[in-house]
Amino acid sequence: MKFSKRGEALIGQEMFNILEQARKLEVEGKYIYHLELGEPKNNKGTKNYPPGRVINRTIASLLNNDVGYTSPAGLWELRQELSEYLIKKHQKQILIGNIAISPTNMLIYQLLDIVCERNNYVGIFTPAFPSYIASINYIGLQTWKVPLCFADGFNMTCNDVDAMFTIRPKVVFVNSGNNPTGAVYNQSVLKYLVDKAKLADCWIISDETYGMLSYGSRKYYSMLNFDYEKLIVISSFSKVFNVPGYRVGYAVADPMVIDKITLSSSTMYTSLPIFTQEGIYGGISIMDEFAEEKKQYYKQLSKECVEIVNKSKYIRCNIPESAFYLFIDIRKLNIDSKTFCMRLLNKHNTATTPGSCFGYEGFIRVAFCGNIDDVKAGLNQIVVFAEELGNDKGI
Amino acid sequence: MKFSKRGEALIGQEMFNILEQARKLEVEGKYIYHLELGEPKNNKGTKNYPPGRVINRTIASLLNNDVGYTSPAGLWELRQELSEYLIKKHQKQILIGNIAISPTNMLIYQLLDIVCERNNYVGIFTPAFPSYIASINYIGLQTWKVPLCFADGFNMTCNDVDAMFTIRPKVVFVNSGNNPTGAVYNQSVLKYLVDKAKLADCWIISDETYGMLSYGSRKYYSMLNFDYEKLIVISSFSKVFNVPGYRVGYAVADPMVIDKITLSSSTMYTSLPIFTQEGIYGGISIMDEFAEEKKQYYKQLSKECVEIVNKSKYIRCNIPESAFYLFIDIRKLNIDSKTFCMRLLNKHNTATTPGSCFGYEGFIRVAFCGNIDDVKAGLNQIVVFAEELGNDKGI
Repeated sequence: MKFSKRGEALIGQEMFNILEQARKLEVEGKYIYHLELGEPKNNKGTKNYPPGRVINRTIASLLNNDVGYTSPAGLWELRQELSEYLIKKHQKQILIGNIAISPTNMLIYQLLDIVCERNNYVGIFTPAFPSYIASINYIGLQTWKVPLCFADGFNMTCNDVDAMFTIRPKVVFVNSGNNPTGAVYNQSVLKYLVDKAKLADCWIISDETYGMLSYGSRKYYSMLNFDYEKLIVISSFSKVFNVPGYRVGYAVADPMVIDKITLSSSTMYTSLPIFTQEGIYGGISIMDEFAEEKKQYYKQLSKECVEIVNKSKYIRCNIPESAFYLFIDIRKLNIDSKTFCMRLLNKHNTATTPGSCFGYEGFIRVAFCGNIDDVKAGLNQIVVFAEELGNDKGI
Repeated sequence: MKFSKRGEALIGQEMFNILEQARKLEVEGKYIYHLELGEPKNNKGTKNYPPGRVINRTIASLLNNDVGYTSPAGLWELRQELSEYLIKKHQKQILIGNIAISPTNMLIYQLLDIVCERNNYVGIFTPAFPSYIASINYIGLQTWKVPLCFADGFNMTCNDVDAMFTIRPKVVFVNSGNNPTGAVYNQSVLKYLVDKAKLADCWIISDETYGMLSYGSRKYYSMLNFDYEKLIVISSFSKVFNVPGYRVGYAVADPMVIDKITLSSSTMYTSLPIFTQEGIYGGISIMDEFAEEKKQYYKQLSKECVEIVNKSKYIRCNIPESAFYLFIDIRKLNIDSKTFCMRLLNKHNTATTPGSCFGYEGFIRVAFCGNIDDVKAGLNQIVVFAEELGNDKGI
């Protein structure tokens, strides 16, 4: 059975393969510590419940039988509310015509497909969110990787930006707060990037999904504050409201781009549910307050998690400045990340994501947004496994 | 601002442009009769409420905080339930590995993109559902149209199938019960099509969204009963459960195809919400019973609607055998369908869809699944407008 070039190039998201493998072990009766998905868990031991306002509003919408179609650009009320929120936050005219609602992961794909021809170069700073890589592959684009450094806390520097523009990429992805590194980029380097992009007539997709969950010393600076017609900011409500399953995100861009996204959504999936969008609409007024609480929670927890990892002689990680991931350096162990993760899962019942999924070898990613006891037990298993490996190899 | 070839080729779904235009008139204070969207309305005067089981189960799932990710192939329980349902119905081993959950509209796009290279031919029998045309355009495929005849009740004949295979299309769409014509194709012509497709090594996508809503003398025959590895059956829960906003549909196909769909879904949107899938899961046990009720309702209503249209001297339609659309012949009036629809909307406050959206001039589509009073008032407006036009032109 033969598929198209695009069909053959599909890789999906590796995290879900690990999840599948973990589920198989669970069926065999093993208890697995899930540190592979960035899915805020709302079970015992976390404070990761979605806001009542969001859930209740969704239910009210369902009870009102709001189960029909709505605009492919997104629910009008949600775009209106978001527009007002963003205007207030950025003192800038971000109008309804600048906003499209779509799942953030979908927007990555939609935007690349709307903008790029086959074989165009797309620039990513690595490690990078696997969905960029999956969409780039699927569409048949070329990846231009600029690797960032562990030693610098994976911060993007002006040198890195220069390296990015040694070729002329069609699109560059920026991701601050970063998944998986937790890094947050400062205003000046972002400004430098925008100036370079303008000169190169290059699109920027700024993925700010974790921006609101920045708790480090470096303050999150939104690229919404820059003016450039080829700059598109995308973000999600999944992580700030702990509702990844809602699949509601948004893009802020030039109205011509928004029109294209709208046509793309109409072509591909008609429109998103009304009730999920109404639920999110119900939460916007408390979004800042709610995010503040999350930040304090993750800030404290991140320190505790880093402490566990850095007990090890062999592996190491930085304290993240945002989000709920640790990107752990396993290079001392001379093992490729996928092998490490599979052996860790099978032997120590702990599911994690290999750095290779992020285009970056020698590291693994763990998510600490799940059940706290499981997260800590899993981290301890990682340390135990690292010590075993290191001792075995006589490192 | 320049977009990619694909970006420039986006047309979206024309019905939504008409809806937007109608909304503008509503803002100006006009009352509009909405006959443009196939969206079962659950307001006063219709029996189109979703089953309580579906809504309640969705709400229970939300109250249980099932707001995380799930498998990109679809919720395991839903696939399992659907597998059992289909095995019972078709006495055939349709296993979980043969089923992927995704929005049906999305599946149209996903399948074409997974299977076709740019400029491949895709065969459609016209009039055809606009999403086929929108996806074909977007992906850069060539359309091979075989027009069906009003005089034959838009039935597909063996001659039409022969015409389809005078070239070698990569994919052929079949749609029984048909949107917009309401036609239902019999087993023998479908068998003839499958045999031809096998000889031509051609994929078949059989869209059976309205199959369960077939109420005419011709019995709906599912292509699931045929064995052919390149046959993919897609369907939706939107219309049978009156929940188009849920965006839950499915594909039944060879496991290799299901794996590709799963990777595509993972790449594009990660996974669908759990709670919508649990809601649908909750409804499957009563799906047949619920569909039976819908069928009686639409059968009766279709006759009343056809009667109104056929009072006219100038326009005419067939009694549909399935679904809730009339495809009305306006050819006597010597006016293109888009002009007819725009003038009808602006002058007579009635929103309908031009035949041109279905790749078929000289006709318009009306949906009679909305508020009954509005549907009938709208149909009467169409007749009034047709008489005006016909008399003005001295036809």
